[in-house]
Amino acid sequence: MKTRVISGLAMVPLLVLVYLGGYPLLALCIIIAAIGVKEFFDGFKAMGINPCYNLAYLAIIVLYVLNAAAPGNFELLCAWLAGSIMLSSLYMFRTTERSPLDAMATMTGIIYVVFFSFHVVLVDQDPNYSILIWMVLLSAFCTDIFAYFSGYLFGKHKLCPNLSPKKTIEGAVGGTIGSVVCCGIFGYIVVPEIWWHCLIMGLIAAVFSQFGDLTASAYKRKMGIKDYGNLIPGHGGIMDRFDSVLFTAPVIFYYIALILN
Amino acid sequence: MKTRVISGLAMVPLLVLVYLGGYPLLALCIIIAAIGVKEFFDGFKAMGINPCYNLAYLAIIVLYVLNAAAPGNFELLCAWLAGSIMLSSLYMFRTTERSPLDAMATMTGIIYVVFFSFHVVLVDQDPNYSILIWMVLLSAFCTDIFAYFSGYLFGKHKLCPNLSPKKTIEGAVGGTIGSVVCCGIFGYIVVPEIWWHCLIMGLIAAVFSQFGDLTASAYKRKMGIKDYGNLIPGHGGIMDRFDSVLFTAPVIFYYIALILN
Repeated sequence: MKTRVISGLAMVPLLVLVYLGGYPLLALCIIIAAIGVKEFFDGFKAMGINPCYNLAYLAIIVLYVLNAAAPGNFELLCAWLAGSIMLSSLYMFRTTERSPLDAMATMTGIIYVVFFSFHVVLVDQDPNYSILIWMVLLSAFCTDIFAYFSGYLFGKHKLCPNLSPKKTIEGAVGGTIGSVVCCGIFGYIVVPEIWWHCLIMGLIAAVFSQFGDLTASAYKRKMGIKDYGNLIPGHGGIMDRFDSVLFTAPVIFYYIALILN
Repeated sequence: MKTRVISGLAMVPLLVLVYLGGYPLLALCIIIAAIGVKEFFDGFKAMGINPCYNLAYLAIIVLYVLNAAAPGNFELLCAWLAGSIMLSSLYMFRTTERSPLDAMATMTGIIYVVFFSFHVVLVDQDPNYSILIWMVLLSAFCTDIFAYFSGYLFGKHKLCPNLSPKKTIEGAVGGTIGSVVCCGIFGYIVVPEIWWHCLIMGLIAAVFSQFGDLTASAYKRKMGIKDYGNLIPGHGGIMDRFDSVLFTAPVIFYYIALILN
């Protein structure tokens, strides 16, 4: 429990950057994307797969430059995605050294880490609901914390013993309820006119938050690693901290874009 | 050379559907995506990787239903992409049976086959330049045919012997010139006001057409298969016929969307 508290404190500078939004948040997202990709690709190397780091870094630079030039242009975003996938394919043309798995790992890193984390920026840039950037973090971290405590107090039935042995069904339910309640309270105070949308977002994001957590676990398990990195000593790497956010950010963004706006 | 002529004739019904556009073309794209994914995933199975066929079929259905409901909504397209990638991740949660490679192969199929081929529909739906749907096919097939003949006549220097032993640099140059000339002529006759844009599109699409061809070859080589399928006896499967189109369709579409429109 002590590590939970300390890891919580390590999040305080993050909250300041999210509060500031704009360029500081943009810089944070670029750093998280770059370190996240590096950690994720290091994991693939432990599996004997060699993704192209430089291509992913190039994709990050191009994505954020395009976004600066034309923020919120989704045709451009799709073009970036298609281009990144095509370039990743070129990486396997040297068949004697490379395999499709190297190209596929590169694509996966670009989409899963870079594209997904970019949705934090998209929420922040939303003209009407940029305040809901807090929901991305709130749903992810509340799910995590409430799942931990309700699992600790009531946990009896294992959720998926092969994948993440400590997780329980009681924890998953408690985490989901915790996220719904916290997001509802946040909505009621900050955006009362759409507070019940916040409840729904809290529910959907809680489910996806746990999918994100389990996805990261599934990769790590096959990579044969316990943590993605050791950036915050004792608390793993960027990808261990933000595995849930990678999934809650798209959920919150598309809810805003397709339902609220 | 005889097989080239016959395979050319097999394309005539296709040309009729492209000429009709709209629903017939939509149906063709759905069929190509479904058969293409099946062929591509069969290739992965030959490598010992087991992607989720049903998830890809579901992704196709959802994509085309969403497109019918809200054509040309790129936020929705990005949401579909993110959702498909997330669902593909869930596929590996049964860690005893599945590996990240199964999930990554599923994602690759959805993006490379389904998302890329969908750009044919996007070009057809363009309000101003749907006529340029012909450029998608013209660039792909002219590159292929001119590369074949110029390689046959002038070919001396191997392009990438490990990947595709018969291809030559002379063929690649000849194919590119052929595409530029044919696309230029097409533009001059059909859309004279933007004929030089057609030249540029012919050039870019010719390069990507050959990338698409080589990408399919790189996958096949590691999958240990010669052809993706045997749909048209003697001419391979859908993926062997349309490997170039998968890359020219996004190129033409984004040129239209980002430069012409």
